[in-house]
Amino acid sequence: MLSFELAEYKERLKKTKASMQEKGIEVLLVTNPANMNYLSGYDGWSFYVHQMIIVVIDEEQPFWIGRMQDGNGARFTTWLDDNHIIPYPEDHIQSAEKHPMDFVCNILAEIGQTKRTIGLEMDAYYFTAACYVKLNEGLPEATFKDATTLVNFVRIIKSDQEIAYMRRAARIVERSMQQAIDHIQEGVRECDVAAAIVHQQIAGTEEFGGDYTAIAPILPAGEHTSTSHLNWSDERYTNNIPVMIEIAGAYKHYHSPLARTVYIGEPDQKMNDLSKACIEGINTTIEAIKPGMTGEAVEQVWRKVIHKYGFEKESRAGYSIGVNYPPDWGEHTASFRPGDQTVLKPNMTFHLMPGIWMDDIGFECTEAIRITEDGCEPLADFPRKLFLK
Amino acid sequence: MLSFELAEYKERLKKTKASMQEKGIEVLLVTNPANMNYLSGYDGWSFYVHQMIIVVIDEEQPFWIGRMQDGNGARFTTWLDDNHIIPYPEDHIQSAEKHPMDFVCNILAEIGQTKRTIGLEMDAYYFTAACYVKLNEGLPEATFKDATTLVNFVRIIKSDQEIAYMRRAARIVERSMQQAIDHIQEGVRECDVAAAIVHQQIAGTEEFGGDYTAIAPILPAGEHTSTSHLNWSDERYTNNIPVMIEIAGAYKHYHSPLARTVYIGEPDQKMNDLSKACIEGINTTIEAIKPGMTGEAVEQVWRKVIHKYGFEKESRAGYSIGVNYPPDWGEHTASFRPGDQTVLKPNMTFHLMPGIWMDDIGFECTEAIRITEDGCEPLADFPRKLFLK
Repeated sequence: MLSFELAEYKERLKKTKASMQEKGIEVLLVTNPANMNYLSGYDGWSFYVHQMIIVVIDEEQPFWIGRMQDGNGARFTTWLDDNHIIPYPEDHIQSAEKHPMDFVCNILAEIGQTKRTIGLEMDAYYFTAACYVKLNEGLPEATFKDATTLVNFVRIIKSDQEIAYMRRAARIVERSMQQAIDHIQEGVRECDVAAAIVHQQIAGTEEFGGDYTAIAPILPAGEHTSTSHLNWSDERYTNNIPVMIEIAGAYKHYHSPLARTVYIGEPDQKMNDLSKACIEGINTTIEAIKPGMTGEAVEQVWRKVIHKYGFEKESRAGYSIGVNYPPDWGEHTASFRPGDQTVLKPNMTFHLMPGIWMDDIGFECTEAIRITEDGCEPLADFPRKLFLK
Repeated sequence: MLSFELAEYKERLKKTKASMQEKGIEVLLVTNPANMNYLSGYDGWSFYVHQMIIVVIDEEQPFWIGRMQDGNGARFTTWLDDNHIIPYPEDHIQSAEKHPMDFVCNILAEIGQTKRTIGLEMDAYYFTAACYVKLNEGLPEATFKDATTLVNFVRIIKSDQEIAYMRRAARIVERSMQQAIDHIQEGVRECDVAAAIVHQQIAGTEEFGGDYTAIAPILPAGEHTSTSHLNWSDERYTNNIPVMIEIAGAYKHYHSPLARTVYIGEPDQKMNDLSKACIEGINTTIEAIKPGMTGEAVEQVWRKVIHKYGFEKESRAGYSIGVNYPPDWGEHTASFRPGDQTVLKPNMTFHLMPGIWMDDIGFECTEAIRITEDGCEPLADFPRKLFLK
């Protein structure tokens, strides 16, 4: 069931250990599900209980720790041998008495790792405050270091196989966006459009199927397009409103996001001005992006275009993407925003996301892009315009 | 857009404050998205950035703190007035320099709450170790107390309106399960079954639409039924395998889960024995459940039946459910397991979940139930048997 050659996992582990070495980290506790998947292949909807991959700098294989019921899941989906798969008993699940991190402390003691410098993903979604307190109590001789994005930064340049998966995700998102545009019209329920989108996301193509995406479709309509994270309701679309569609395709948990905006009826001058500025902004930015630029410089290109039209945008114009699990498809590494000094390199992948949310309406037209040897290429092939229905 | 009468939100807040009082907590930082929704109505896929509801024991309204872009989302979905909606700037998003909890510390200083006893949801999914460290650094005069499940326990008895929403969710899951059973057969791709299920979950019924569920369909086939959290692949079903379907319907984020098992082909003796024991187990348990029993006592009923057939199950036989967001539809309060002393009361709701995962196969047949005045009732109406295809 491995999604990559064993050699690719070993290369990832090698790079992770090099980064640990550089940061003086001897043991790394990896709790971010995308990072767990990246290093071990582990896959499953079990991130709602505590679990981790332990990378010990001088051990060949990492250890998987998770719930007893998921032990077979680890055996099916990872490249680790059986004595590196260490499940904890079921009475540790959401219990006030027994915490999985106590089990982790015991395992670290058994394998002689309690006096080392231990890296923790301090700001990763599923690494809670309680986990941190338990580890501090249970490992009094350890030194802790923040390693929130250590593995994320190892992930930032994609392999050819990863790019191939993101291209498949792009094929899926093209079809899913077409479903959205085909279904949206006056009188149709928002939930029926969302259902058509998600059906396509999961069914994928005839050649390959799709995964659940790390974010459910963002599908605000009317004045709700003035905010960025409303999903859908069972209300029916009325006339003379914009509808934003921000979705992704996912293949083996690799994401290609894409956003477009539909207008039901005849858009007014403001909507036309906003969409014109945004589309010129994204087109100009795609033309300008080249390896060697910084994340900050990319944002400046976009900013300059919309300024010309009198618009401003406070939020980021993009962020790095790749493999991910709920609740976010963002990689949490480089962003297109002021201050970001990441230098773009070939096979970095971004969600270029120059949407604008104003007080009453919004417009989004975005692309997943790959940095190439001399520029960038959008992964999906979908018209960039305001769609009229 | 409020899902409940204003009076119901105020009642919830009153109960929360009573629990705070009892525990000596003066300020409660609520980061669990389900708890945020329960107290304020807030809804949106924004739990991938830091956000919270602050309940101050002597303030009438709680405060919403979240990302600038989501401020309008809070205005649309909550009952809070504008000066209780406090967004933080966009440059705090996934930044190495600026953390949203620094902003929270500043707000607590502005409203004079830095010297109080502050409750934290220490083991809630999105309350990371970094949040805890930042609050500790920023609020040196505060006293912190663990309040991980304080609001969860306020949620444990459902109002009639909440039960009405869970019944709608049950209507949705009945239809979604039927889709699964209709579509599963030899030669069909797993992803196409998953797509049909999710389409129905979101489209809902003609009368009302559905929401995304807090867990994506769990749909293991063949030997993968020996583990509990594999979703689907794009492989085609073969003959002579079991397929487990664990899904929910969701309406306004209230969940009614349901699991069934299908066998493609002719089940062997082991599969028949396993399914017979489980079905007798769940039927007997449903008959036995009454208000006044403990969570532990419920589990003993189930355990006794399967023991008779020579089976054992280490994991819980059920857990409390209600409103929820990814990654879990469990409420994290009462469970049906040894040691649980929760006394069942009318309008508590559970996922009674007596599945068994053996080394090679598994069987699941579960029900969402409501505790009634003199027993319990399953929310969904769906045959309890091994489905043959």
